[in-house]
Parts: sequence; structure tokens; C-alpha cells
Amino acid sequence: MYISMKFNQSVRQDTAGNKSENQVWKWHIQDPASQKLTWNKPPKSVLVIKKIRDASLLQPFKELCMFLTEVKDMIVYVEKKVLEDPAITDDENFGAITKKFCTFRDDLDDISNRVDFIICLGGDGTLLYASSLFQESVPPVMAFHLGSLGFLTPFKFDSYQSQVNQIIEGNAAIVLRSRLKVRVLKENREKKSRVDEKGIILTNGDMESSRKSSQYQVLNEVVVDRGPSSYLSNVDLFLDGHLITTVQGDGVIVSTPTGSTAYAVAAGASMIHPNVPAIMITPICPHSLSFRPIVVPAGVELKIMLSRDARNTAWVSFDGRKRQEICHGDSITITTSCFPVPSICFRDPVNDWFESLAQCLHWNVRKKQNYLSSEDEEF
Amino acid sequence: MYISMKFNQSVRQDTAGNKSENQVWKWHIQDPASQKLTWNKPPKSVLVIKKIRDASLLQPFKELCMFLTEVKDMIVYVEKKVLEDPAITDDENFGAITKKFCTFRDDLDDISNRVDFIICLGGDGTLLYASSLFQESVPPVMAFHLGSLGFLTPFKFDSYQSQVNQIIEGNAAIVLRSRLKVRVLKENREKKSRVDEKGIILTNGDMESSRKSSQYQVLNEVVVDRGPSSYLSNVDLFLDGHLITTVQGDGVIVSTPTGSTAYAVAAGASMIHPNVPAIMITPICPHSLSFRPIVVPAGVELKIMLSRDARNTAWVSFDGRKRQEICHGDSITITTSCFPVPSICFRDPVNDWFESLAQCLHWNVRKKQNYLSSEDEEF
Amino acid sequence: MYISMKFNQSVRQDTAGNKSENQVWKWHIQDPASQKLTWNKPPKSVLVIKKIRDASLLQPFKELCMFLTEVKDMIVYVEKKVLEDPAITDDENFGAITKKFCTFRDDLDDISNRVDFIICLGGDGTLLYASSLFQESVPPVMAFHLGSLGFLTPFKFDSYQSQVNQIIEGNAAIVLRSRLKVRVLKENREKKSRVDEKGIILTNGDMESSRKSSQYQVLNEVVVDRGPSSYLSNVDLFLDGHLITTVQGDGVIVSTPTGSTAYAVAAGASMIHPNVPAIMITPICPHSLSFRPIVVPAGVELKIMLSRDARNTAWVSFDGRKRQEICHGDSITITTSCFPVPSICFRDPVNDWFESLAQCLHWNVRKKQNYLSSEDEEF
Amino acid sequence: MYISMKFNQSVRQDTAGNKSENQVWKWHIQDPASQKLTWNKPPKSVLVIKKIRDASLLQPFKELCMFLTEVKDMIVYVEKKVLEDPAITDDENFGAITKKFCTFRDDLDDISNRVDFIICLGGDGTLLYASSLFQESVPPVMAFHLGSLGFLTPFKFDSYQSQVNQIIEGNAAIVLRSRLKVRVLKENREKKSRVDEKGIILTNGDMESSRKSSQYQVLNEVVVDRGPSSYLSNVDLFLDGHLITTVQGDGVIVSTPTGSTAYAVAAGASMIHPNVPAIMITPICPHSLSFRPIVVPAGVELKIMLSRDARNTAWVSFDGRKRQEICHGDSITITTSCFPVPSICFRDPVNDWFESLAQCLHWNVRKKQNYLSSEDEEF
Repeated sequence: MYISMKFNQSVRQDTAGNKSENQVWKWHIQDPASQKLTWNKPPKSVLVIKKIRDASLLQPFKELCMFLTEVKDMIVYVEKKVLEDPAITDDENFGAITKKFCTFRDDLDDISNRVDFIICLGGDGTLLYASSLFQESVPPVMAFHLGSLGFLTPFKFDSYQSQVNQIIEGNAAIVLRSRLKVRVLKENREKKSRVDEKGIILTNGDMESSRKSSQYQVLNEVVVDRGPSSYLSNVDLFLDGHLITTVQGDGVIVSTPTGSTAYAVAAGASMIHPNVPAIMITPICPHSLSFRPIVVPAGVELKIMLSRDARNTAWVSFDGRKRQEICHGDSITITTSCFPVPSICFRDPVNDWFESLAQCLHWNVRKKQNYLSSEDEEF
Repeated sequence: MYISMKFNQSVRQDTAGNKSENQVWKWHIQDPASQKLTWNKPPKSVLVIKKIRDASLLQPFKELCMFLTEVKDMIVYVEKKVLEDPAITDDENFGAITKKFCTFRDDLDDISNRVDFIICLGGDGTLLYASSLFQESVPPVMAFHLGSLGFLTPFKFDSYQSQVNQIIEGNAAIVLRSRLKVRVLKENREKKSRVDEKGIILTNGDMESSRKSSQYQVLNEVVVDRGPSSYLSNVDLFLDGHLITTVQGDGVIVSTPTGSTAYAVAAGASMIHPNVPAIMITPICPHSLSFRPIVVPAGVELKIMLSRDARNTAWVSFDGRKRQEICHGDSITITTSCFPVPSICFRDPVNDWFESLAQCLHWNVRKKQNYLSSEDEEF
Repeated sequence: MYISMKFNQSVRQDTAGNKSENQVWKWHIQDPASQKLTWNKPPKSVLVIKKIRDASLLQPFKELCMFLTEVKDMIVYVEKKVLEDPAITDDENFGAITKKFCTFRDDLDDISNRVDFIICLGGDGTLLYASSLFQESVPPVMAFHLGSLGFLTPFKFDSYQSQVNQIIEGNAAIVLRSRLKVRVLKENREKKSRVDEKGIILTNGDMESSRKSSQYQVLNEVVVDRGPSSYLSNVDLFLDGHLITTVQGDGVIVSTPTGSTAYAVAAGASMIHPNVPAIMITPICPHSLSFRPIVVPAGVELKIMLSRDARNTAWVSFDGRKRQEICHGDSITITTSCFPVPSICFRDPVNDWFESLAQCLHWNVRKKQNYLSSEDEEF
Repeated sequence: MYISMKFNQSVRQDTAGNKSENQVWKWHIQDPASQKLTWNKPPKSVLVIKKIRDASLLQPFKELCMFLTEVKDMIVYVEKKVLEDPAITDDENFGAITKKFCTFRDDLDDISNRVDFIICLGGDGTLLYASSLFQESVPPVMAFHLGSLGFLTPFKFDSYQSQVNQIIEGNAAIVLRSRLKVRVLKENREKKSRVDEKGIILTNGDMESSRKSSQYQVLNEVVVDRGPSSYLSNVDLFLDGHLITTVQGDGVIVSTPTGSTAYAVAAGASMIHPNVPAIMITPICPHSLSFRPIVVPAGVELKIMLSRDARNTAWVSFDGRKRQEICHGDSITITTSCFPVPSICFRDPVNDWFESLAQCLHWNVRKKQNYLSSEDEEF
């Protein structure tokens, strides 16, 4: 099961995203307000993601799973850990149904080719987690907020049955949320230290190449910061191979448009609609007063490394996860991914976005008042 | 009727503020939260200021004036223009009472020594207007908001009688809102043009000195901007005689702490509690990214002039009033005034301020949410 | 002479941009760093734009025109007004050459189909002016700064001959700067006043439709502000027909990515690379603290109107020009234009942009320093 | 040796700052630009503070110490660790002189009553360190920058002899940099865990009071942040006992005016001149868009505690030092200290400040340019 996309002509297509032989869904990009989901054949398998340790989600989760299994006759995938919750194992009625579920273990089982559809229950974090499960193409995601509206969770659970029915019938607008493909390249430091034991300091050239590479798909942002250190972080930022600036401050955020309304906006960034093909670079508390955030075209390649004269290491995290240390010589390479997250809209990409700006960020929620006082006779 | 104050030891006292022979009120400065109003003798005369052209204020205005005249036996001062409103002249009942009022005309009659107490009805603009009537000491001001809370209007009108009684009994906290004393010095340009008609261009030295000076007391801010021009304004800013910077942008705001929550905050300033003895300088859309607002001690002398190479004139206004053009050679001199506005608190200076930050500016009004997603098991 | 472009798939193509029969140039969009200019046949006619009233430009202007006419054998177009400068008419040598020029009058003569190539001498304003001359497709523009580098003027004049030769040989990177197509629709107010004279106030429905429409192509931004008024402006902002917010403040800037580094950045916007297909909306000193700038996809349709309860009119300008008043009922409609400005790069779109960020805005120009002090032994 | 000060009338004096019997220096507060240092008797003992591990400082350090010991006949205090540097112990010439020095060990020996004068060599960190050595009154500090100007290090080393002579002669302006007195109160958690071992969860009331208190004098800022956690910090902020807001974000900075140009400015604060008696509260990357920094009067009492529903602990540091964890029930209480740092000016408080704004922060360093393009004929 693969996703086909020609996300944007300015995105460099470094791998063929188009492998359509047994594709179940596709979409048409026309203009921001009218991207539509269409299923090639009805979705059969559905992954249900539930926020852990939130008692208020249990009942909705059970209801939803029963509906999907019994009424819609779909194969429900659930993470093993979710079903191990005593509140679920103790419920005999539900226990019978869970036997029909397919379970998987995070970081061990790969379900990326077995799922046609994803439903999230909880906060924005559930969608970030869903994204992390699919390193390549991602099935369409329908996300319910149970409490307050999130940027990524536009659906209310109240009338979930009719809503799910509508989506399965293909009656839905979609927003393609671009992701970042991040590759972390680490020098093998054990090697180095063994060399040190010999008492001889070898240059890089003397060592056989031994670097460890790992890769991540990121929906919100990559954050590089000073971690627990009190020192400023000091990292160099390269764009398409050229050093464009050095970040001196608490750190730097490289975000998607989706992530522009998350950590980046707290650090002072403008807010970018998810349909804009761009990458945002936002310094965190930069030492330089003139270091305003910048927005570059999707398709460029960014690289972040510790500056030569950095006295401390830096720390990197990916959508707030997999936090790890970055040392001298390590590099973080970031490009627009070919595998966006197709996020199902409650209304449409434009209205959903402005709704969440108002609800989540109180964007320009105002009381009318005149700060500029008026002329003499009308104060 | 004069005000005595030793506003702050860091304020240079350029005129004797202390003329206490027949003073009716005084206050004690101890700490920000406990400045108290005390009357030397009960206030006799009260100036009532009403926002013009707001029909919803008519009934409260009449009630208040009747209460002050009939019940409290005070002499009520009202601006002539207010009583000329047909909605007032047509009311025969009220008409009889207005005969007892003392009336005055703005810009013509000086009532600054005849008023013991001020009551404002309406928005923040009423207090700015009250301030403009008193170029020297200002009687204590009690300000009612009729609709939504303002920064300067903390009282609700509902129980106005008991509130006014309490104030008159001296049971009130007070915040001394510092003002700016602004002097505008203009070159006499008519003189200059007469010289031009002779066909001889005389240097300044050749002309007999002929400059026009005017002075203002400002409660919120002095704004210098580009006016209707599309060009950037270009003004030099001097502090105690030294050029400290040149402002290139839409303009510059010099504000009191009270004004920091008005236009200045819209231009990006931090918000300063009115008890901090300081002057705030905030550029408006500056061309330079690093031009952050600054806060200097009350007591310094600022001067603003057009830069030599400014291609356009600038415009200045004082609490949004008396807008006028500033040409080459003109200067605007600004210092902390010795005559603050004693503004009566609803609760106390600290609580009133944070209440208005929340109500007027939605300061840090939030919905709890996690933008940094959590580690694996708790999204 | 027309321009062909498929600017971006997310731009709604409302007119056919592709009329290629006698096209002289074209370009290939691949990725942001590699858009190349290619001429279908060598350019014959060149429009030279010179900043007026800058004596330092006279000599370079003459040299350049002589080179283009005599050496390159091109037809030089110059605005009539430029040649009427006494410093030019008095120069007999140059006078002979000017006879070969084609002249035109701004706002009267349409040269948009007669020019193959544009050269600008001066500041960013020359390019804005060039843009205003071409309401549809724009020939490639090469812009020289004579003094300091501008965002739109990357070329130094020193070696202008070899530079021009290179461009004509087609050896140049290009950045397609998107423009905004703006339509202002004004109610015919004279009609209305005639009605008033009758003493009868007719509703809109009674009047035959009589609206005046005008259209502009904008390279930097459309600004709607409060003009000379001291009141806040109060305008409604619609996106694809939906009211998304009301702007209460000094005004609002709708800008291209090119314009994001002009007025918008002064008003607090993030900076957007010109290759990002987007429209930026930036409030100017908004009353609401949470009114952060937003970036929406190129291709949406924005509309701005006075709010119903606005007490004052607003003023609009287009790249700082054609300033006009906006009254109740008038509307400003803004979309991404199909006719970008093909701006020739000195190096390439990425390097040129970061170079100008540093040179024009001192972006993140820093002195290394540690604001976070270090642990005990390393201060 | 004590310091006398009546720092500002709005500072609550919670301990008697005035113990003048054997006081060596005093100053006169008049206005921001004219505070002068006067010595009651010539300073005899001088503490020299040197940045560690900076080879470029060795020679100046030796020269200065020799000058102070041999020429000025003063008693030089140096930290023991400084003299243990091999580069110093290996220098026989200098070794002879070090024998005359008084040495002390940080955190072990109290020299606060034995020093008349402090000289710092290095960056701003040296002054922060000096401040940390004096929990009560601080002798006048003269700070040399060896490389680039710092906010706290205005003197160039070139002509150090004449500069030091001038200061000792009392010919110097001084700026009184206010400090914050911070008290951290920690619940005794060992006690709690012992109780847990019994299997009984006791409420606070059941435990005998057992809290650990520590106190700090802070020159720049107290920072409370999320430390190594990826979660938002969630802390409550109290002012004079009232909850004024909850900070949700990366953390919060409580700074002096001196600290406003350090970490606070990086987090978006306005810059406050050190002579303004105020405390600045700046959120770090707050989740709420409207959470602008605020400035409250010196003299208030702030308290910071973890919010009840905070899922994580927070971390606090003092001028970047003594970093420690804050758990539920712990509190941080902050007031203006009675013991400012008397910092000797190179010129005067106003000029020094604007000089460092320009040098350290490039404040409003600009290139003249017109972002608003001009009208038709003058682009």
C-alpha cells in the first residue's frame, strides 16, 4: 500500500513517491481549498491510536472499536500496550472483541503496509505518534479531539459514526501536511576513544569510515537546543551546502508549516498554512536581536552541525521524541519528505486552520477598544 | 488648590510642586501596593466628564449629577458642550438641576484651581481628556467604565453611590500615574518666507529669534510619525543632550508606564506597571530589525528633531490630540512631569493593573495545551 | 512579446499566461536554486530605468545607454521625463545619442509589448516602478545598485559591460518574483450624493449599479492603513469569501514573499524567500497582542473592506504608490498574479537572498558573546 | 565595611542597609547621569578577578597585580585557583609577588568584609562571579574587557594605570546595579519518602515542618525553565501573595534592569536602563501568544512555584549558576535586594549604556534605506 503524490513542483523528488499498483487512495491537488480524498477501493484495515493514561478516552475508544469491528466490519489495529491497560483487560464485554484486533508493538512490528486508514483519539500528540509509525507513505488520518480542539484534531466525537461513514464514503476534504525527512549522521566515537588509548591522535582521514546514520520523518519540527546546559548552543546552519548563518542562543527550530503553529510560534515565528510548500527556520532566544525567523522553499536541503568553537554539545529531538546528543562532527540533514501526512479535514483546509488558530492560539481574539484616543469632541 | 508630591527621588524637580497652603488632599507613598488617598478637608467641587455622543451614558450621567448635587451637596462642574446636547436640554426635570452646575468651555476657561475631585464616565479617553484640562496639579480622578473595563476606568457604575461615598470618606488606594511634560519649539517659518521674498536667503543668525513654544501634559504618549506621507520618517533622538539614535520607520512613541499598555504595546513594547518611574521609547515599525524598545529612568530629558537628511516632515500628537506638523529645526522636548494624575483604584494598583491586563489585552489568557509532544507513552 | 509561466501548481490560473507564439524568453522551473533564463532569440529592445534626481546616477546612466546603443546595437527605451533633466539636455555629446532612443510617457504610453529586457539603475524603487509599467507579463530585469545593495538590486555597476554581455548570452539564474493582482472596487459616491440632494435617502438597491474598478500589479505589498487619522483602522479580512478576522490597529500589509523583507518585516513578519508560493498577511501595530502575521498559500483570494462599525475611512497604497481612500462599501480584492517579475540574479536565488538579508537587514549579524554565564570555573 | 544606600523610595527596606561606622565609600544619588563615587578613605585592599582558562588574560593580569601591589601599595586578593594555573606558578618573577597576595577559596572563605575595591578582567561573567561573592554589600567594581566590550565591562585595558589612578582618586561616575534577593525553600523530600515506606501517605499537616532554605543575590536574572525535559514547564507566578498568572512554555526569566539586556532581551524583552527601579518578568517561548513581558516596581515580592497540575519538575538557576531542580511544594521568592552592585562607569551611566547597546546588541545599527517606496517621480 503506497501513497502517490506529486506534492509540489518545487519539491525535489529524490525517491519515486509514485508506486501505484495496489494503491487504495489518491487525491487531487487543485487549489488549497479543494483537495479531496478518494478511495480506490473501500478501506479494510484501520489503525486506532489512543492517548495513553487518559481515563476519559476509554469509553469512546471502546465504542469506536466496536463500531469499526462490528458495524463496519473492518480490521482494527491497536498497539499492544493500549490493550494491556487494566481498565480494558478487566472489561469482559470488550475483551471478547479485542480478540479480533490485530496488535503490534511500537518499534518492533512494522504495520506501515497493512493499514488503509488511521483514526486518532486524543490530542495533537496522537497524530505525531501516528506519523512516527509511518516512515514512508501514510494512510489518511482522521483525528478526534475529546476535549479541546487541537491543530491536528479537528473532529468532535459526538457524532463519530456518521462522520466515519462519510469519510469512508470518500466525502472529505484533505490537507496534505508536509513532513521533514531528517537524517542524523554520527561519528563513531568509540572508535575514536580506542585510538586515544593508544596515545596517538589520528586525524579523521586515518580512520576507516565508521559513521552511524539514523533517519526520521517529522511532522512538526526538528529542535536543536542546548539541552540541560547553561551555555548557549552554537550551531552552524547550511542550506544546499552553503553556510548561511550561525545560531547562537537557546537553539533552533526547523519546522514544517504544520509545526509553525506549535513550538515555532512560541519562539516568535509567523504562522504558515499547511498548504504552503515551505520550511521554516526559527531561532530560540537568539543572542542576536536581528535574527528573525525565515521561510525557505520546500525542496532545499538544510544541514545543522555544531560550530567549530562550540564549547558544548547540542541536543536534537524529532516532534519532541528520540532526544539525543549531537557532538562535534555529527550532522543533521533536513529536507522536505516525499511522504506527507494526509490529514482529513472537518470542513476544509482553510476553515479548519483559521478555526484552530482562534481556538488554540486565541489568534486576534479581541475586545474592541480604542487605544489611540480620539479628537477633542469624541473621547 | 495645589498638589504636593515628591514623586520619585530620581525625578529632577524643575518646578516646585509643593505649594501646600490650601491643599485639600495629599497621599503617602510607601510601596506600590499601599498608596492611599487622604483628603485634608472634604472635597466640595467635582468635575464630571462624560464621553460625548454616547446615548447609553445619558441616564448614568444624570443620576450621578443629581446624586452629587442633591445628596452630596457638591458643586458640579460640567463642560458647556455636554449640556447643549438636545437629549439633555429636552429633559425638563434635569434642566432644573443643570442650573446649579458650573459650566466651562474647553480651551477657554481655566478651572484647574477650582476642582477638588474628578469623576469620569466612559472610556479611557475621558481620563486622557481630564488630564489635558490640568496642565499643573490634577485632582484625584475616579473613572467609571460603562461598558467594558479600560486601563484607566476601573469602576463599575452599578453601585456608584456607595463607591463615591467611600472615596469621599478617603477610603481609597491611589496610583500616581506619571505624565510627560512636552514642549514643542517651532521655528517661525513665516518670517523665513518673508526673507525669501527679498530674494536673499539669510542664515538663522541673521534673523531675530522668533520661535513659538507650546507645552503639553501627556498621560499616555507622545507619538511622532510620518503622518499621511508614504516615506519613512527620519528623526533624531537625543537624551540629556546627546544623540542616542536615529529612528527610521513609521515613527516613535515616547510613553509613560501608563501609556505602555496603549499604543506602545501594539508596537511591540513590554508592559510597565504605572508605579515604575520610567519613560519608554518604542519605535513604530522600525526599518532596523534590532531596534528593540528601551526604558529609561524618569528624570531624563529627551529631545526629538527631524534628521538633517529627512526628506519629509513628521507629525506629532499628544495622547492622540493636537496633531501638528514638525519641520526642520523644530524640536520636541520631553521630561517626566512633576504633576502626575492621581488615579483612584478600584482595589489597589497591583490588582487593578493585572485585572486590566487580562480584561483589556487578554494577557496570557490561555488554553492549556502541550506543543512539545511527550515521550513515547504519554502523547 | 509574452511571458509563459506555469508559476506553481497551487496558483489558480485565472487567465491563460501562456501565449508563446512570438516569445523571446522562457525559463525552466526546477528547484529554487537553479531557475535559468534562456532567450528564444537575442533581446533587441531594452528599457532603462533610472532613479530621478540623483546626480550620482547620471554618468553611469549615460555610459550604460551608450554601450547599449552603440556597442550592443539595441533599441533603448527611456522615460521622457528622464531625458528632460537639464543635466542631460545640456550634454551635447549625449544629446546626439538620445535621439536614437524611444521615449514614452508614464501613464500615457504602453510599452509593455515592445520591450525585451529591462535594466534598472538605482534603489529597490526602480524595480517597483518597472513592475508598475507592466500590468501583464514582465521582461527579465537586471538591476544595478549604485550605492548600497538592495533586496532587488543585486548587481554592482563596476563591470557592467561584462555583466550585461553575460545576461544577453543567457548565462543567468533568475528568480520569479510573484506579484499580487489587486482590484479596487469603489462605490460611485457622486451618484449617492445626487440622491441626497433630493432629500431622499435611497438604499443601495434603489440605485442602478455604478461602481468604479481599478487594477494594480504589486511586487512588494498592498498596505491598508489609517492614513492621517488618529483613529485605529478597522477592516475586515476575507479569504475565499469567508470573513477570517477583523484588523484593528494601524493597518494591515498584504505582501508577496519579496515584500516580506520590506515593510512587513518592519511590522514583525518572518522573512520569506521569494521562491515560496505564498501570500503574507501582517497587521501593523494591532490592538490585539495575539495577532501574529500569517502566511497563506498563493492562489487564495483575499478581500479587504472597512468594517461595518469603522468610524473612519482607510487608505490603501500599492508598492507605496497610488495612495487612495477606501470608504464604506469599497473593496480591495487580492490574488497571486499570473505575471511574476523575472528578476535576474547576481549569483543565484539562494545566495542573493541571504546576501541581501545580511547586507540590508543585518540579519543575525552578531558579535559572539555569552549571555548565559557559565558555571563556576569558566566565567 | 558596609554599604549605605537608600536605593529608591519605592524599594521596601527589609533590612537596615545603613551601617556607616567604618564605611570607606559612599555615593550620592541625584539623577541618573550624575551618581558619583566618593571614598571616605583611600581603598587599601583590592580583589582582582580573572576569567579562568583564557591565556590572553595572563599578561594583563600579572601587570595589573604588580601595579597594584608595587606601585599602589594595595593588598591584592586573588582566588587560590587562579594562582594554581601552571602558567602562573611557572613564572618565577611573578611567583615572588604572589606571595604578597591574600588568597581565598570560593565557597569556603568569606572575604566580603575585607575588600574595598574590585577589579575584573574578562567578560561579563567576571562581574557576575564577583557579585556572587558578596551576599551583602558589594565594594565598587571596575571591570576591564580585554576583547570586545561587554555590558558590565566598560573599561579598555590599554591605559589601565591612569584609569585605576583616577578611580582611586574618586573621580568616577557610578551606576548602582540593583540585584535580586532570591530565597529557595525546598520541602524535605527524604522525610516524605520515609513516610511512604510506612505505606501511609501523610498530608503536609502531619509532617513536622522540615524545609531547607537557601538564598542568593542575583545581578542578571533568575531563570526557571524545563531543564532537560521535553515537556512544557508549568509554573505559577505570585506577586505580593496573589497569583497573577501561570507560565506555560520553556520557562520564565525574572531579571533586574541589568539583566534585561542579557537573556531577557533574547526572549523578547524591552531593554531597561539599570537606573530604573524595576523587576522584569519575561516568559521564555510561552505557549500563549499574548504573554508579553511585564515590568513591575522594585519592591514587590514575587514567588514562583510549580503549578498543581505540572507533570514535570522545573529547574532554576541564578545568574546561570547553582542550577537545581524545583519540585512540587518548593518555592522561589524574589525581591529587590538592598545590596546593589556599584559598578564604575567609563563615562557615565547613560553613555555607557547606549555604547554597550550599540556594541553588544547592534541596537538600531542601520543602513539607511527606504522600504516604503516613494511616489512616482522619486523612486
